[in-house]
Amino acid sequence: MKKSLLQFSVCILMGVVLLLAGPATAGKAADVEADVAAIKEIWKNYRAAAETGNSDLWLSLWDENGIQMPPGMPARGKQVLKEAVPKGWSARKPGTKITMNINAEEITVAGDWAYSRGTYTKTTTPPGGQTVHVDGKFLTILKRQPDGSWKIFRDCFNSNVPPG
Amino acid sequence: MKKSLLQFSVCILMGVVLLLAGPATAGKAADVEADVAAIKEIWKNYRAAAETGNSDLWLSLWDENGIQMPPGMPARGKQVLKEAVPKGWSARKPGTKITMNINAEEITVAGDWAYSRGTYTKTTTPPGGQTVHVDGKFLTILKRQPDGSWKIFRDCFNSNVPPG
Repeated sequence: MKKSLLQFSVCILMGVVLLLAGPATAGKAADVEADVAAIKEIWKNYRAAAETGNSDLWLSLWDENGIQMPPGMPARGKQVLKEAVPKGWSARKPGTKITMNINAEEITVAGDWAYSRGTYTKTTTPPGGQTVHVDGKFLTILKRQPDGSWKIFRDCFNSNVPPG
Repeated sequence: MKKSLLQFSVCILMGVVLLLAGPATAGKAADVEADVAAIKEIWKNYRAAAETGNSDLWLSLWDENGIQMPPGMPARGKQVLKEAVPKGWSARKPGTKITMNINAEEITVAGDWAYSRGTYTKTTTPPGGQTVHVDGKFLTILKRQPDGSWKIFRDCFNSNVPPG
């Protein structure tokens, strides 16, 4: 009887270890793949929002406590972005053509956090005006939301070429 | 006998659950505190290295696969930094006075990854020359090393004021 008790206990122990460790390991690769795909979708929407001037779409990509860190001005939180971005984008000359490319060289997920690093280009051409070309790079922190989706939490970027 | 077997099994089960879950939860707060302290120490050394022109100290703060993302030039990896930074710093006019302040407003740890966000100022005064003042912000990814220490992995920064 003593032997069968020991066997039973070892069986329970192994069961519990597998129960706790198994799903976490098994689900990991597939989860990360889905996370990376979701973050790629954010960059796709970021580009679409910038090109079409859709500030609602652009703002929807940001966490409510998000902070943007653009060059040439202090960091600005989501509340400031909600006011400044629609105003700024709608002040553009009608017919202005914007083309953007975002090349996310890295998307690294760590639990409920992720970062993305890459380069981007943006050209802005007002009707009959001179094209302004930006060649830059970015480092972005993304945060998983309670519903499982991802949002931009911190975003720092700058130019790859000296000013002038 | 059936009852005592059940009791014994429940006991084993609870023991295993506590064994696996307990230390991870209990050690968490203290670990994060130590991680934050270690990252604050990196910023302290970053500042000291910049002020004293100690490029060896500065380079030692970086992961071997680190990438710096300064404004006005493309991103540059640790191998490039190893050549460019000692050369650049030693080319300064002897007697140049550098003062730096780093204000890490955020240090957030997620497992073996962390990010830090904040502002910095840097003044450079060559002997008899004009003081150059930089007022900027930074977003930095740090990576835990196999020995448990932290190193800078990605670092993007830019100016809080427009060029000119």
